[in-house]
Amino acid sequence: MFALLAASAQAIAQTDPLPSWNDGAAKKAIVAFVQATTTQGGAKFIAPEERIATFDQDGTLWVEHPIYTQVMYCLEKVPALVAKKPELANVEPFKTVMSGNHDAIAKLTLPDLEKIAGATLTGMSVEQFNAEVKQWIATAKHPRWKRPYTELTYQPMLELMRYLRANDFKTYIVTGGGQDFVRVYAQQVYGVPPEQVIGTAGTIKYSYGHHGQPVLTKEPKLLLNDNDAGKVEGIHFAIGRKPYAAFGNSTGDRQMLEYTAAGDGARIAMLVLHDDATREYAYGPANGLPDTKVGTLTQALDDEAKKNGWVVISMKNDWRRIFSFDP
Amino acid sequence: MFALLAASAQAIAQTDPLPSWNDGAAKKAIVAFVQATTTQGGAKFIAPEERIATFDQDGTLWVEHPIYTQVMYCLEKVPALVAKKPELANVEPFKTVMSGNHDAIAKLTLPDLEKIAGATLTGMSVEQFNAEVKQWIATAKHPRWKRPYTELTYQPMLELMRYLRANDFKTYIVTGGGQDFVRVYAQQVYGVPPEQVIGTAGTIKYSYGHHGQPVLTKEPKLLLNDNDAGKVEGIHFAIGRKPYAAFGNSTGDRQMLEYTAAGDGARIAMLVLHDDATREYAYGPANGLPDTKVGTLTQALDDEAKKNGWVVISMKNDWRRIFSFDP
Repeated sequence: MFALLAASAQAIAQTDPLPSWNDGAAKKAIVAFVQATTTQGGAKFIAPEERIATFDQDGTLWVEHPIYTQVMYCLEKVPALVAKKPELANVEPFKTVMSGNHDAIAKLTLPDLEKIAGATLTGMSVEQFNAEVKQWIATAKHPRWKRPYTELTYQPMLELMRYLRANDFKTYIVTGGGQDFVRVYAQQVYGVPPEQVIGTAGTIKYSYGHHGQPVLTKEPKLLLNDNDAGKVEGIHFAIGRKPYAAFGNSTGDRQMLEYTAAGDGARIAMLVLHDDATREYAYGPANGLPDTKVGTLTQALDDEAKKNGWVVISMKNDWRRIFSFDP
Repeated sequence: MFALLAASAQAIAQTDPLPSWNDGAAKKAIVAFVQATTTQGGAKFIAPEERIATFDQDGTLWVEHPIYTQVMYCLEKVPALVAKKPELANVEPFKTVMSGNHDAIAKLTLPDLEKIAGATLTGMSVEQFNAEVKQWIATAKHPRWKRPYTELTYQPMLELMRYLRANDFKTYIVTGGGQDFVRVYAQQVYGVPPEQVIGTAGTIKYSYGHHGQPVLTKEPKLLLNDNDAGKVEGIHFAIGRKPYAAFGNSTGDRQMLEYTAAGDGARIAMLVLHDDATREYAYGPANGLPDTKVGTLTQALDDEAKKNGWVVISMKNDWRRIFSFDP
């Protein structure tokens, strides 16, 4: 009898779909949402084809400190760019990047970074860009953990994505980052196929190569700025259905969460709070800390979350572990 | 023994996935493509998640004569628009539409039609637009057949879509028509969910309603013109994978077919030729007929098709039946 009970307890433990989550309000809210929306005949049942969940990436699915991974990519591509266009060596902001002066680089302004992004992310074919990102992401390492960026994904969020997919939710990434950039690794890292990655995207020029074959060239002109209300626009354009679940961590996710939370039936909107300086980082006004260059949970957004019943996930308290490795 | 053979012949007949197609080059090419790409271990096998097929809508999946269905929608919405904004009654091109003079309406220019489209397709919430289209599409009738437009889909193409889906292809509509418009009926009519409809789309304004709820308003500014090279841009943006099969009928589909046909492995690019004046229509230069307002198969595109080995589908010869009803 004891053996039976023990075996049964073990079976339950083994089938917990969210083992990296501590028992608490956040985990309870997720499990209740999934049960309510997948119980056939229940008042809050959602037809499988309408089960859409959207996830911000930076700061929600993986580390965004000390700087967005894609910005790191752009900075690290500058030497190759300057080798090809030596005239840039004495032009700002490329000159500062080439100096290797960390303090000066950290002080680059948003327009500086946009110039660097334009120069390193566009003006090449889609194939060439994909190949360059693929190579970089396989070798580049995060300065703190000395591990590939793709290992700095949050284990609890990966479990959440798998749990939702096991319940017939389609999981989409809706990122302010570059759509083409994230698509390179999203299947492997998150189990999300390219057609379920929505991100900031530029226009594409269609032309013909030497053998008459079509060539798609990435242009600097924006097609979609997938931040703030742009996230809702991206969801409307690429999905055409309103999500039932949305996960973010900063003001750039506000409209996506508002849009998802409004409407009939069971809905869940959650924000990841970076409040674990030991295991990851603590930053942003909701922690009583100054605003940072990366997306933050402002006091206003925290207030809106409380008012609307959105769940704020405390990394410190809600997550048993942060990464798949022990930091 | 004879009974067994007869039963077996009947079983084969029953399982023909393309019964509305005559045996001929077009049908053979389709079946050969599907067999090659789905035979495990074969040289041209495509992994299921990469099986993407894209379809133009107007003239490829349903009738586009005498005028695109969506243009008919816009024209028929003008009286309601003028009732709301009486000052438009004396302003062109609305005045001409209100006159009911068919000859004058048929002579409206593209800029005229764009003005009418802007006034009838934008400036309202997404929900209101969807409701209006839903109501119209359920009641409006084609002037020739006196049947709902949604019955004027080509039976052979619906069979082709089902056949591809049965073989794990994802079928996308990639239309120059309005994305929001087509999404209203695409699931019901074509079995294509909203997230697999790519079309011409305007920007969306995000604001708040009386109760603080998010409101998405359709704006006249273009986000994507999903024609010509815009179809490739739309495919890259919304799917992020190159299709293996593409179907169109006019110059607006040229780049989509070129893009799809270029590359390794089995690929299929097909054009529907409207050469059946009795059962449907015959039009366009490839028939030796004058160009029309709707998309046509030009001589140049016909030449490109022949040169590249694209298959031109003759409605007259390749299709045993055109519609699900007998016209």
